[in-house]
Amino acid sequence: MANLIQPKVLKGFRDFLPETEISRKEIQQTLEDTFKSFGMVPIDTPILEYTEVLLGKGSGETDKQIYRFDDHGGRDVAMRFDLTVPFARFMAAHINELYLPFKRYHISKVWRGENTQRGRYREFTQCDFDIVGVDTPEADFEILSVMHASLTALGIPEIHMNVSHRGIFNAFLEHLGISDDLAEILRIVDKLAKIGEDKVMEMLTELADADKASKILEYISAGGSFDEILLKLEQLSGGPSPGSERLKTVRTMMVDCGIDDLFVLNPSITRGLDYYTGIVYETFLDALPGIGSVCSGGRYNNLASIYSKTEMPGVGSSIGLDRLMAALEELGTVSAKKSMTDVLIINMDANLKGHYFSIASKLRSAGLNAEVFLDTKKFKNQFTFAERKAIPFAVICGEDEFKAGKITLKDLNARENYEMISVDEAVIKIKEISKAG
Amino acid sequence: MANLIQPKVLKGFRDFLPETEISRKEIQQTLEDTFKSFGMVPIDTPILEYTEVLLGKGSGETDKQIYRFDDHGGRDVAMRFDLTVPFARFMAAHINELYLPFKRYHISKVWRGENTQRGRYREFTQCDFDIVGVDTPEADFEILSVMHASLTALGIPEIHMNVSHRGIFNAFLEHLGISDDLAEILRIVDKLAKIGEDKVMEMLTELADADKASKILEYISAGGSFDEILLKLEQLSGGPSPGSERLKTVRTMMVDCGIDDLFVLNPSITRGLDYYTGIVYETFLDALPGIGSVCSGGRYNNLASIYSKTEMPGVGSSIGLDRLMAALEELGTVSAKKSMTDVLIINMDANLKGHYFSIASKLRSAGLNAEVFLDTKKFKNQFTFAERKAIPFAVICGEDEFKAGKITLKDLNARENYEMISVDEAVIKIKEISKAG
Repeated sequence: MANLIQPKVLKGFRDFLPETEISRKEIQQTLEDTFKSFGMVPIDTPILEYTEVLLGKGSGETDKQIYRFDDHGGRDVAMRFDLTVPFARFMAAHINELYLPFKRYHISKVWRGENTQRGRYREFTQCDFDIVGVDTPEADFEILSVMHASLTALGIPEIHMNVSHRGIFNAFLEHLGISDDLAEILRIVDKLAKIGEDKVMEMLTELADADKASKILEYISAGGSFDEILLKLEQLSGGPSPGSERLKTVRTMMVDCGIDDLFVLNPSITRGLDYYTGIVYETFLDALPGIGSVCSGGRYNNLASIYSKTEMPGVGSSIGLDRLMAALEELGTVSAKKSMTDVLIINMDANLKGHYFSIASKLRSAGLNAEVFLDTKKFKNQFTFAERKAIPFAVICGEDEFKAGKITLKDLNARENYEMISVDEAVIKIKEISKAG
Repeated sequence: MANLIQPKVLKGFRDFLPETEISRKEIQQTLEDTFKSFGMVPIDTPILEYTEVLLGKGSGETDKQIYRFDDHGGRDVAMRFDLTVPFARFMAAHINELYLPFKRYHISKVWRGENTQRGRYREFTQCDFDIVGVDTPEADFEILSVMHASLTALGIPEIHMNVSHRGIFNAFLEHLGISDDLAEILRIVDKLAKIGEDKVMEMLTELADADKASKILEYISAGGSFDEILLKLEQLSGGPSPGSERLKTVRTMMVDCGIDDLFVLNPSITRGLDYYTGIVYETFLDALPGIGSVCSGGRYNNLASIYSKTEMPGVGSSIGLDRLMAALEELGTVSAKKSMTDVLIINMDANLKGHYFSIASKLRSAGLNAEVFLDTKKFKNQFTFAERKAIPFAVICGEDEFKAGKITLKDLNARENYEMISVDEAVIKIKEISKAG
């Protein structure tokens, strides 16, 4: 007792109180329902893995951020830092138990010991969805459709998806005679929206001559309609390429499905990573451009190459749940319910305790969420409890009601009473009022 | 390429393939719906915490099993080994933001580096539900009701819950003049069902004289009806006590709600831990007694005492999801769906790709889960895919259908075709057949 331990959490980690957790769960449910409606199936993988499996040959930045240690058996283990690497390992391990194309989703937490000064969390939730086993425009288009359907289902009003294709960009660089510093060029190009044309030009001329640098700038800042930009990119990269043909087919599918308005061809989108080989995309909310991309991804054609010789082309996308939650809160489209209880049964007569629970049980059988106040306190305390939990109805059952086999229903929002009615009548009343509200 | 990394998982850890993960999610959903119907709300806490926060003064056994390491900032951190300790910390940290009684549920993974030889997992999922802030028979009874409702909702046919009360047992030991080795006695008594009366007697006589040992055995093996046993326990412990009065009230509520048949008063249930102070319970499945308790818990009246001076009486229970899943599989009550897709749209004409996606989109709007096969392969391959994914319907749309604005629906289970119908007609057909099936 003398030495209390301070109940604090680690920096970058968070408790989720009911109000937030109810919203998080609702958002996850909406996303899962959307993923399922496209035939995607859920998987799960361990949170702890062999470090070698997660890092492979190791990529500098991630390496430093990973939570890594020796376990009881002296094994070098680490907590996963994304859901892509475990998925690649999963595909390599289970390819013979699965059918292709394999479409999975995975919503779970990941950990990175990032600098929390930048408002980043060290524990955060990702929602990944991928299609593995085919390299087709259908698969590329489907991921875009799932992204669109997911954000629409969440009630986000205006979305624009920026699309680009790494294959065309690579053909362009080749046509230009650039073969070195590709990763560095990708990184610079990706910063266009953030740092502006002048700064990009300055950085590019440190890598290539002024002529080539201005060509790159011309490529990534090409303007016009989707089709005009695509034509321009083809011209700049020496004519049609498999990449530009693929993008044309995907474009046709957008038009056929009447959702072409949502997509912007933005050649400056490269996603920075070596990893991507085809189509890439980022999604910005028109109402909140400053929040960054809430849903990004692309095609990678060597998913599991560090674990398996089997080729596994894939295309996928990832939604950052925490960033999305922040966006939804700012847009005011998140519900923030305090509880899901419909009815509180007031606990007023010690002799009727058992009866109160059987009323609650009847209400539950009728599909309502009901709870008995778990202590015989003053009415005032019980109604305060209902208010704090935002419970819309209360049931009163004193000796008179009990003897008559009835209850009194209180509509706490409208402050109206329905006296001496049966539980069945109360159910009908509650459903009527809830529907109207 | 030369050096492939083996895609293996750590011992005691598992991948969940879609079939298993779909079941796990369905079970979790059923449990969550039940918890909500009782007015419980969800919370979440970090998976990584300060070791001091999780271990407190340290409990030998857990200490050795915990995944513990120094993070980047040199902090001594650990992965949570249960959901009770983080909940206690949560209550101490947020007591002023919450209302009491606070009823929460939490379904999440926990980690223990246990010996995997005994068929134990090192990563497993717990479903905890607790009521904090009241020490009343209503709260004790409600947890029992939630346990019963949860297992019933999962379709488990015959359940018996073993109930006991630590307060009565403590009064009995005091009456007997035993005040030492209480923890040791609890541990021995708890083993009655496993090791039998003789062995328990032998172990008890090592701690107390033969007379006292046989009194303890008499107490823990008391037989008869609930009320008869309760009377006997009162007699053995020197008359009525607050514990026996509490149990009587809870018993009355069971009778009032007509669920008294489900509960057995079993004085050998002690739950072993010092932690519990009142009612304790374990749940066995009549059909699978060997699997052990699938849902256990009890009253603890000092939940957060290592973090806070505020008294927080609580009562709660925990369901081990992995053990429960194993039980449901053995009972054959788990569904094992391969996917949730209702319709596969056959991808047969390269010119109609976009059209296939708009058919899928229409089916989704009608509430069906639909997917386009993502490659133009032979019919045979596409139907094999449908079979492996257990998709019950397929849509065919060739040039003729497209020109007529129609489709052909195939019922893959009944092997029946509905030719040249509209998408709307197909939706009605699918819903009709699915309902009948």
